[in-house]
Amino acid sequence: MKKVSEFKVTPWEVSGKVDYDKLVREFGVSQIGEKIQKKFDKLHPLLRRGVYFSHRDFDKWLAAQESGKRVSVLTGRGPSEKMHLGHLVPFLVAKSLQDEFGCDVFIPISDDEKFFVKPNLTYEQALEYSKDNILDIIALGFKPGKTFIFQDFVYTNIYKYAAQVAKRMTYSTAKAAFGLKPENNIGWSFYPAMQAAHILFPQFEKGKHMTVVPVAIDQDPFIRLTRDISDYFGFEKPAALHAKFIPSLHGGAKMSSSGEGIVFLSDTPKEVEKKIKKYAFSGGKDTLEEHRTKGGEPEKDVSFQYLKMFFEPDDKKLEKIEKDYRSGKLLTSELKEYLIEKINAFLKEHQVKREKAKKEVEKFLYK
Amino acid sequence: MKKVSEFKVTPWEVSGKVDYDKLVREFGVSQIGEKIQKKFDKLHPLLRRGVYFSHRDFDKWLAAQESGKRVSVLTGRGPSEKMHLGHLVPFLVAKSLQDEFGCDVFIPISDDEKFFVKPNLTYEQALEYSKDNILDIIALGFKPGKTFIFQDFVYTNIYKYAAQVAKRMTYSTAKAAFGLKPENNIGWSFYPAMQAAHILFPQFEKGKHMTVVPVAIDQDPFIRLTRDISDYFGFEKPAALHAKFIPSLHGGAKMSSSGEGIVFLSDTPKEVEKKIKKYAFSGGKDTLEEHRTKGGEPEKDVSFQYLKMFFEPDDKKLEKIEKDYRSGKLLTSELKEYLIEKINAFLKEHQVKREKAKKEVEKFLYK
Repeated sequence: MKKVSEFKVTPWEVSGKVDYDKLVREFGVSQIGEKIQKKFDKLHPLLRRGVYFSHRDFDKWLAAQESGKRVSVLTGRGPSEKMHLGHLVPFLVAKSLQDEFGCDVFIPISDDEKFFVKPNLTYEQALEYSKDNILDIIALGFKPGKTFIFQDFVYTNIYKYAAQVAKRMTYSTAKAAFGLKPENNIGWSFYPAMQAAHILFPQFEKGKHMTVVPVAIDQDPFIRLTRDISDYFGFEKPAALHAKFIPSLHGGAKMSSSGEGIVFLSDTPKEVEKKIKKYAFSGGKDTLEEHRTKGGEPEKDVSFQYLKMFFEPDDKKLEKIEKDYRSGKLLTSELKEYLIEKINAFLKEHQVKREKAKKEVEKFLYK
Repeated sequence: MKKVSEFKVTPWEVSGKVDYDKLVREFGVSQIGEKIQKKFDKLHPLLRRGVYFSHRDFDKWLAAQESGKRVSVLTGRGPSEKMHLGHLVPFLVAKSLQDEFGCDVFIPISDDEKFFVKPNLTYEQALEYSKDNILDIIALGFKPGKTFIFQDFVYTNIYKYAAQVAKRMTYSTAKAAFGLKPENNIGWSFYPAMQAAHILFPQFEKGKHMTVVPVAIDQDPFIRLTRDISDYFGFEKPAALHAKFIPSLHGGAKMSSSGEGIVFLSDTPKEVEKKIKKYAFSGGKDTLEEHRTKGGEPEKDVSFQYLKMFFEPDDKKLEKIEKDYRSGKLLTSELKEYLIEKINAFLKEHQVKREKAKKEVEKFLYK
C-alpha cells in the first residue's frame, strides 16, 4: 500500500505535512534555483536559508534591477492587533532587498480589510492599530525617501485605483479566490480589488516596472489574480517570492495570532522567557539521559528554527548549534536560553527604535 | 369582471399605468398632505403642482427647520452623459428648497457608480462627464458656501464613510436591493454602500441632523436601506420626497436617456424645435376639425405637462393654456410653439450661466 501524505494549502486553510515540491508543481510557480539563491548569499536568513523557496518572475525582477531599471518591493499589513514576530517575516525580507538592491518599498496598511473582516473591530480601533503597527515597521530600519507607507483609511486616493481594478473583477471571481459568502459584508466583497490595487500601486504611481511581493505560499492565488488583471493596465505582471510556513512556537504548521505563546514585539524580557520556556516546541528527547545519547532533532525544534530563520545570522555559530543539538551535547534548555537571549536583544533594540520612529513617521507616509 | 390595472415599480423597471395611491400603501410612505403642500406654495412647479406626491419624514424635516435646527438637502448625479431636461428634476427641487429654507445642499457625483455599471465607460470618460455635469448643476443657481459638490473619484475621502456603511450591509442585502448578479463587477457590489454613504454624508460631515433626498418613487428602496443603517451611526433617518415619473417626450412612463427626442441642456434652438415638433406626444385630436370641436387632453399631452412641471410658473397663464387646449381653442402646434419658446429661453440663459460656472467651480467643490 502506497503511503499517502495528504496536505491542504489554501488562503484559508493550511493543514497536513506540506510537500513544497508538489505545491510548486500544482501552483505552477518556479523553484528558487541556484542562480537566484546565489543572489541571496548576503541577505536576511529568511532568504539565505531557504524559507523563501519558490517564486514567480523574480528572475525578471533581478534582470530589470541589474540593467538599472526601476524595481520595487511591495508588502502590506492588515492591522488588527499588536505585531508579533511572525508578522515581521515579509518586512525583514523587504528591508533586506532594499538594503541589497537599493529599491523602493511600498507598504499598504489595509485597515479597511481588517475592519471588514473582523466583526468586532471598530473603525477607530482599525486606525489605532494602523498607527501602532506602522511604528513597528519603521523601526525595522527602512530607508526614508525610498519607503512609502499608506493606510487605506487615510490615503483614500487608493480608492481610485481599487475602483479601476474592481471594474475588471466579477463577484464570481472574487468569491472563488477569496471564499466570499453572501452573508459577508460588501466591504469584504470589494476588498479583493483593493488588495490587487495595493499590489499594482507601485506601477499606478510610478509607471510600469517590476515589483516583487514576498508572501507565504498560501497567498499565491491573490498574486495570480492580480497578475491576470495587470495586463489590462499595461503593467508588468507583479513578481512573487513565496515563503514556507513559519511554525508557531507550538510547532503548528503556520504561525497564527490565536492562542498563547505568541511573542509580541512589545513583550518584556520576562514574558519572552516565560513563553519560550513554556511553549517553544522541543525537538529534544524526553529525558536528559536519552537526549545526551540519542541527540535532538533540530528540524523539529522550534527554538532552533527561530534561530535559523531570524536570530542567528552567523552561519558558523548556527552550524555548531545544529551539530551540538543533534549530537545531544546541547540541551533543549540551553538552546532555549540562547534563543531567549537573542530575542530579548532584538526586542530591546526594536523597542528603542520604535520610540524613535514616533518622530519619523511623517517621512514614511505616502501622500 | 373586475378591471385589473397592473403596474410595476422597482428600481429597474417601471411599467404599466402607475397607481400612485396604491404605491404609497405598498411602500409604506406618506402622502404629501395639505400641511406640507402649503409649504410648497411658492416653490418650484415640480413641488407646487404635485409631481412630488409622497414622502418619508419630511414633516420632521420641516419641523426641524422651523425650530431653527440645521437641515440639508441631498441629491446626486451619476455622470455618464451630457445632461438633459429630465436630469434637472431633483436639482430644481433642491435649489427651490435652498432658496426657501436657506439650507445646505450636498451633491455627490457618483462617477464611480457609472464607471462600474457602464461596461464601455472608461475611467477618464467618467471624470470628464463629472466635470461637464457639474457645470450644468452650478448653472442652476445654487448658493456658493451652502452648496457642496463632490466627485467620488476626486473627493476619495468618501471611501472612509462608504467603508463604515459597507460593514453593515451584507452582500445578500445589497444583492436584493440593487439586483446584483454574480457576473457584475465588485465595484458594483460595493456601490450600495457608497450610495448610502452619500445619503448620510451631510451627517457624517456636519453631525446628526435632518436631511431630505428628493427622488423618483422607484428609488425609495435605496432610501429605506439607508434609513435602516443610519441608526447604527446614531444619525437621523434621512427623509425623502418622492416624485412621480416624468414622462418622456414620447409619452412613456419614465423619461430615460435612451432613444431620440431627448432635450439636452446643450441643444440649439433648432434642435429643440425639431425634437418637440417631431417627438412631443400630443394630447390633441387627429384632425384640426376634430380638435376644434372635441378639444385636447392636457393630461396626456407632453408639451402641456412640461409647461406645467417646468416651464410655465405663472398659474394663471397655465390655467388659460389648459382651458384653451381642452376646449380646442389652442392647437397642439400652437402649444408646441409656446413650449419651444419657453425651453429655448431657459436653455439660452442656462448656457450663459454654464459658461460663467466654469469660473466658479472651485467655490462649490467640497474638500
